Amino acid sequence: MRATMLYGPRDVRFEERPDPTILEPTDAIIKMTATCVCGSDLWPYRGLEPVTEPRPMGHEYCGIVEEVGSEVKLIKPGQFVVGSFVASDNTCPICRSGFQSGCVHRAFMSGAQAPLLRVPLADGTLVAIPDVPSKDLIPSLLTTSDVLGTGWFAADAANVQPGKTVVVVGDGAVGLLGVLSARQMGAGRIIAMSRNEQRQKLALEFGATDIVTERGDAGVAHIKELTDGLGADSVLECVGTQESMQQAIRSTRPGGYTSYVGVPHGVELNGEGLFFALIHLLGGPAPVRRFLPELIDLVWNRKINPGKVFDLQLPLAQVADAYRAMDERRAIKVLLWP
Amino acid sequence: MRATMLYGPRDVRFEERPDPTILEPTDAIIKMTATCVCGSDLWPYRGLEPVTEPRPMGHEYCGIVEEVGSEVKLIKPGQFVVGSFVASDNTCPICRSGFQSGCVHRAFMSGAQAPLLRVPLADGTLVAIPDVPSKDLIPSLLTTSDVLGTGWFAADAANVQPGKTVVVVGDGAVGLLGVLSARQMGAGRIIAMSRNEQRQKLALEFGATDIVTERGDAGVAHIKELTDGLGADSVLECVGTQESMQQAIRSTRPGGYTSYVGVPHGVELNGEGLFFALIHLLGGPAPVRRFLPELIDLVWNRKINPGKVFDLQLPLAQVADAYRAMDERRAIKVLLWP
Repeated sequence: MRATMLYGPRDVRFEERPDPTILEPTDAIIKMTATCVCGSDLWPYRGLEPVTEPRPMGHEYCGIVEEVGSEVKLIKPGQFVVGSFVASDNTCPICRSGFQSGCVHRAFMSGAQAPLLRVPLADGTLVAIPDVPSKDLIPSLLTTSDVLGTGWFAADAANVQPGKTVVVVGDGAVGLLGVLSARQMGAGRIIAMSRNEQRQKLALEFGATDIVTERGDAGVAHIKELTDGLGADSVLECVGTQESMQQAIRSTRPGGYTSYVGVPHGVELNGEGLFFALIHLLGGPAPVRRFLPELIDLVWNRKINPGKVFDLQLPLAQVADAYRAMDERRAIKVLLWP
Repeated sequence: MRATMLYGPRDVRFEERPDPTILEPTDAIIKMTATCVCGSDLWPYRGLEPVTEPRPMGHEYCGIVEEVGSEVKLIKPGQFVVGSFVASDNTCPICRSGFQSGCVHRAFMSGAQAPLLRVPLADGTLVAIPDVPSKDLIPSLLTTSDVLGTGWFAADAANVQPGKTVVVVGDGAVGLLGVLSARQMGAGRIIAMSRNEQRQKLALEFGATDIVTERGDAGVAHIKELTDGLGADSVLECVGTQESMQQAIRSTRPGGYTSYVGVPHGVELNGEGLFFALIHLLGGPAPVRRFLPELIDLVWNRKINPGKVFDLQLPLAQVADAYRAMDERRAIKVLLWP
């Protein structure tokens, strides 16, 4: 097969690779229906994460099961499945507590920007869809694998509650789906921080009630102004930089909740500052598996349309163009058809 | 009156000071029944917090109301009261959400190591006891003002639940009362980290089930060994150093809860490390006011005896000796009688 490899900064190649095979009896092989590029793929693409050897890329996926290992009991060949970007057994105590991305057997997926993918711990990781979906549902189903699951976790971890005020820091695909998630959870007011007109538009479409374009001190001041001087009940940090993290923490009211789902790069939190902010903090790789059944159901029944974050769709062979478009912020998120 | 002032590192003076007076119509003046030295008083005492001018010391207190301002409605002269170490109006949205230590009008108390104390926002800050307590209850009632309230918050913020496994990092008075609090909340297993025999003994008396003496990597390894390799459900950080904070975070299982109530000094949290730890984090100045009615009730009905943390009692005039005893770890906590 031909698949996506990152050789170094801005060096994405679509090249011949061996087909994946069953390595463990708990594995499954799936034939990719659709995959995409994640914001977190841009860190190594931009050279902000070292790439010491060629790296198979991609961790968002949905497709048809081709083959399963001898110990796979629940997942069957022919099923249409979506899985989390973190493989998990879904039976250990950590999984049972709803934190499958911290599973004692967790494995971060890679190699999904390819026509075939090996999924470890298939019974724990994959969720089968009731039927083969119509093509127009594919983009939204694909989002449940990571980008929607992560935005949803951001809202859940920030304790979004009906009627409460929510701030979303970051207008990437995760932030935009954080807005959609907060709307689904009944937030009263959803303030999206964005200075990009197209993304503001999508944020409003997903349920944002206010847009704040300022950043830093001015951004915090504007949030305070909109919240009786208190700060927001729930703040979702969906970027991963020091600036965005400080923005999020400082926009949260005392006793409020800050979640962070952007993989932190160069973030250092001062203990004393955090102490006197008096906020709940929860973040990390999203336990997407916890949310998959509910999110698939919402998509299947056309209650939400998170697939709108894909404003560019390309054949998988043009994966290098997809990275370029996202790197240059010409596209919010790019879907790839094998 | 004569009261306690800190002039600089290890320079505590008990000296003539003007009696406090009503400055705001919401103030009360209380006649101190008992006060004490807090672990956090040791930071400036040890020169780890700058002292730029002589500073009135003490923020833990209980006593009889002498006088109230014209707008004080609930608190009456003659009542025996306990109050939080943070004054709060107890009516603002932050207070109503249970985070009174983040009150929009919050004021950190000082000057309680004195025979008389001005308490701002008296109606919000103080809680009256049903009757004048017998002398043997005074030490325990005094603890509700901060040290027990803080230990209780540590357990509450770390989501201590019946049957769950709890680790307490720090064997100071707050840590020991964190153990007592976790016991009250029904924790199944309470692991106290301490290498001091006398404190271990009190921890066991307060309900600890295990003692871990190692620190750092060995301490984390021992906790993992005691928790099926997973880490604890709830970890209470009751010190405030980089080492203790890392100890706490690394001892928490993915999806678990770390609270931190020791005022952080020199603590820096790496964003990426925290992200992959996948833990809930909540800390800050304890919203003692939220817990005061319940804690007073537990003490009043002799269900708990947190006053045992006072292993030395001195006349207030010997306050300098009290600081020395705690600084040298000869005493866990020193009660002062005016």
